[in-house]
Amino acid sequence: MPIVRIDVTRDGVTKEQKQQLIKGVTQLLKDVLNKEFHLTHVVIQEIDTDNWGLGGEQTTEIRKQQSKQ
Amino acid sequence: MPIVRIDVTRDGVTKEQKQQLIKGVTQLLKDVLNKEFHLTHVVIQEIDTDNWGLGGEQTTEIRKQQSKQ
Amino acid sequence: MPIVRIDVTRDGVTKEQKQQLIKGVTQLLKDVLNKEFHLTHVVIQEIDTDNWGLGGEQTTEIRKQQSKQ
Amino acid sequence: MPIVRIDVTRDGVTKEQKQQLIKGVTQLLKDVLNKEFHLTHVVIQEIDTDNWGLGGEQTTEIRKQQSKQ
Amino acid sequence: MPIVRIDVTRDGVTKEQKQQLIKGVTQLLKDVLNKEFHLTHVVIQEIDTDNWGLGGEQTTEIRKQQSKQ
Amino acid sequence: MPIVRIDVTRDGVTKEQKQQLIKGVTQLLKDVLNKEFHLTHVVIQEIDTDNWGLGGEQTTEIRKQQSKQ
Repeated sequence: MPIVRIDVTRDGVTKEQKQQLIKGVTQLLKDVLNKEFHLTHVVIQEIDTDNWGLGGEQTTEIRKQQSKQ
Repeated sequence: MPIVRIDVTRDGVTKEQKQQLIKGVTQLLKDVLNKEFHLTHVVIQEIDTDNWGLGGEQTTEIRKQQSKQ
Repeated sequence: MPIVRIDVTRDGVTKEQKQQLIKGVTQLLKDVLNKEFHLTHVVIQEIDTDNWGLGGEQTTEIRKQQSKQ
Repeated sequence: MPIVRIDVTRDGVTKEQKQQLIKGVTQLLKDVLNKEFHLTHVVIQEIDTDNWGLGGEQTTEIRKQQSKQ
Repeated sequence: MPIVRIDVTRDGVTKEQKQQLIKGVTQLLKDVLNKEFHLTHVVIQEIDTDNWGLGGEQTTEIRKQQSKQ
Repeated sequence: MPIVRIDVTRDGVTKEQKQQLIKGVTQLLKDVLNKEFHLTHVVIQEIDTDNWGLGGEQTTEIRKQQSKQ
């Protein structure tokens, strides 16, 4: 039954990394809640850094500031 | 008031099919809960098959396996 | 694969009505996109009317106004 | 058209505060994107502090630690 | 802690407008609920007008009708 | 930055199990994507079994059938 939604910034997450996240989350739900593998859905959404704000700023700008430090 | 979110894998769903989903869901909410058409929002999100996992595997890989059988 | 999320206001939706929504949406996805029944998840979330705003007002207040008309 | 979902921890947010959030967000979308009031939906979801984790810890525990400092 | 998700139709929202939405929502949560800036996440999702239905119709078609009036 | 939403059926998940899920997911995102612990939010939502449908049936009813077998 579990549905897990993972939102991350669009930072070039590789296919292999996505597979690791899917496998890891599905195994975790099996280990902790004994949820059947075949019933666990994992959906990864990649969000543009202009579209994700933290502390009132766009991630794009936060990273520009960080790269100047 | 209803907001309906439909997540499907990115498989070339046509404009016409999206219209059928929107119409069908809106009619269903009218029939079952008497919700006004003009208040029902339907949002369809198409997810890459690398980004949707089931049973610990990416849909892309599940489909490759299925096509070999 | 489809995951359908239906958000409605908490208005005493009955168990039977929920079953009709689940059945109807699952059938619609089979009819339009040929999605397998056993892979379609439907999640219904009931939201308090104080927590759902439209036009800048809480639904609770909108309904009070409507009942006075 | 806009749908805004606000997730906050269940901390006794009052009805009045919810109204302010709904009004404020709806006005913001009118001011910035000229979105019509009557089309803007705002949904507030209150999450138990056991169910919201940050930095690998439950909010309930984070707050206990903070109250000891 | 707050997570705010803003879904809008994909209508060429500019980077500057996104920044205003992020700033405005974060400030609102500070003003109303005294939520710390650095803990408030805002995620903006832009949805194709074919994928957003209202009143049983796709937004794309609604706008065509409106432009004829 | 990551926001992870875990939807499960309301089946008496304990506080300890929720802590394990939060810790495990946060660690996984650190291991796979090197995401900072203090930026990873995990939100667990528990859904009534009447409100979660699979294969066109409510989970409540699916479980009743399973218990008869």
